[in-house]
Amino acid sequence: MSPVDHAELALLLEVASTPKPGNVDRRRDHADLRFEHFLAGAVGARPGLGAAADPDRPLGDAFERAVQGMSQQDGDNTQFGCLLLLVPLVRAASTDRLSPAGVDAVVDATTVDDAVAFYRAFEHVDVAVDDPPPDATALDVRQGADAEPAIREQGVTLADVMATSADRDGNAAEWTGGFERTFAAATAVRDDTGPVTDRLARAFLDLLAERPDTLVATEHGSETAAAVSRRAAAVRGDLDAAEDLAAQFRAEGINPGTTADLTAAAAFVALERGVPV
Amino acid sequence: MSPVDHAELALLLEVASTPKPGNVDRRRDHADLRFEHFLAGAVGARPGLGAAADPDRPLGDAFERAVQGMSQQDGDNTQFGCLLLLVPLVRAASTDRLSPAGVDAVVDATTVDDAVAFYRAFEHVDVAVDDPPPDATALDVRQGADAEPAIREQGVTLADVMATSADRDGNAAEWTGGFERTFAAATAVRDDTGPVTDRLARAFLDLLAERPDTLVATEHGSETAAAVSRRAAAVRGDLDAAEDLAAQFRAEGINPGTTADLTAAAAFVALERGVPV
Repeated sequence: MSPVDHAELALLLEVASTPKPGNVDRRRDHADLRFEHFLAGAVGARPGLGAAADPDRPLGDAFERAVQGMSQQDGDNTQFGCLLLLVPLVRAASTDRLSPAGVDAVVDATTVDDAVAFYRAFEHVDVAVDDPPPDATALDVRQGADAEPAIREQGVTLADVMATSADRDGNAAEWTGGFERTFAAATAVRDDTGPVTDRLARAFLDLLAERPDTLVATEHGSETAAAVSRRAAAVRGDLDAAEDLAAQFRAEGINPGTTADLTAAAAFVALERGVPV
Repeated sequence: MSPVDHAELALLLEVASTPKPGNVDRRRDHADLRFEHFLAGAVGARPGLGAAADPDRPLGDAFERAVQGMSQQDGDNTQFGCLLLLVPLVRAASTDRLSPAGVDAVVDATTVDDAVAFYRAFEHVDVAVDDPPPDATALDVRQGADAEPAIREQGVTLADVMATSADRDGNAAEWTGGFERTFAAATAVRDDTGPVTDRLARAFLDLLAERPDTLVATEHGSETAAAVSRRAAAVRGDLDAAEDLAAQFRAEGINPGTTADLTAAAAFVALERGVPV
C-alpha cells in the first residue's frame, strides 16, 4: 500500500479502535456525529492526501483540499486535526524521509502561501479553538480567509503559525517538535501484540495519560484536562476498565479529540513501518 | 464524490451497518475475520475500482486488480462478491448509464479476456463456491488461471460465465438480470429514513427475507438457506429483533454473505442517487 492508502486506512483504524474514551469509535456515536461520518470523511479526504504525497503540490493546498473533501458529510468536523498531522507525515513518507528529522524538514519548508491555505481550511468546518494570544488577534484562525492580508503583511509561514500555537494545541506541538509523540506511540503500537485496533486503543490511553488533551483544555479548562489524564492513567493498559471511563466521559461531555488525532497519526507511522492488519 | 469514492464508501458502509445477522459488522467480528480486515480491504480495492471507472481498461482486469488489492490484509476474502457487483456498476456509473439497461450493456460488452481475468482473481483469495455443473468441470473457478486454455477454446466471455452460474449464485444472477435486486434495494434505501447504516441493515434483512442466500445454500444446503430466509422475514423491519437473530446465526455458523454483497451494491447505487451520509 502507498502512503496515501496508509493515511486513509489510519483514519479508518483510528475511528474503529475502541474504547477511546470520549470519542466516537466502533461502539459509540455522539448525538450529531456518527461513525459513518468518519468513514465518509476518510474517503473524502483522499484527494487532499494524494496532493500531500506529491512534492510538487503546496502542502497548505493539500491540507485545505483534504479538509474540504473530508467535510462532504453531515457530521461537520470529523478529522481536521488528524489531517493536520497526516499531511506533513504523508509528504515525508512519500519523499522517503518518514523520521523526526524528515518531517521537520517538511515543516521548515512551509511558506506564507501554506499558512494562507491553512486559514482557508477553517472555512470548510467548525473547529473548536481557543482565543489567540492578545498580540495575535489579527491571526485568529477563526478569521479564515479574511486573515490573508495580515498573514502576508507579517510574512508568517505555516511553521510559524504552528509555533505560535504549540503551547496550547497538541497538534501544533507535534509540528514544532518533530512529531515526537507520534513516532513514540507508533513504536509502541508496532511492538504491541494483538489486533491493530486494540493496540491503537491502548496507545490512545497511554497518550492521554501522559499529557493533558488540549481540546479538553480548550473546552473545559486546564484543571479538567489534567484530571482527565489522571483518570486515563488509572485505566491504562486495561481496555475493560476503559469501557467504564468511556461511559463516564460521554456523560460528562469530555472529548479528548487531540489525543485521537495523535492516535491516527501514530497509526499512519505504524502502518508505514509494517504493523499488520 | 466520484463513483470510485462512492464504491469505496459503499464497502465501508456495508460492513459498518448493523445488525446484518451472520456477517461481520460494526458490532461483530468472526474468529479470523475482523472488522478492520474489511476496512483494509476497502482501501486496498481502490486502484481496481479506479480501473473499473476507466472505460479504456478491461473490466476483468479491473476486477482482478480490485481483488488483489483487497486481499492485502490478514482476513483473506473480505469483499470478493461485493467487488464482483461493484466493478460493472462503477463502469456503468462512470460512463453515465447507471441503470439496469446501462449495466446490461456493460455486462454484454465483456470478453473472453475478461473471463480469464475473472478466473485469475480466484488465485488471490479463498472463495466459497459450489461444484460446477457436470458439463462444466473444465470451467470450475477453483482452477483459477489453469482454466485459461478451456476458456479460450470454448470462447466463453465473462457474461457467459455468469449466465452459467446464475441459478446457484446470487451475484451471478445480478449480472444476468440487469442488477434488478440491487436497484430495487437502492430505491428502498434512498426512500427510507434515518442514518444510512440503519437503512442498509433494514435492506439486508429485506433482501435475505425475499430470497435464500446462495452462500448459505452452498455451505449448508438449500433447506437451511430457505429456513434462514424465513427467520429473516420474521424480524424484517425490526433491528432489535435482528440482534437476537445475529446471535443465533453466529452460534449456528450461518453466514449470508451473498446478501451482504447485494447490500454493498445497493449502497453504491443509493450513494450515486444522493442518499445522505
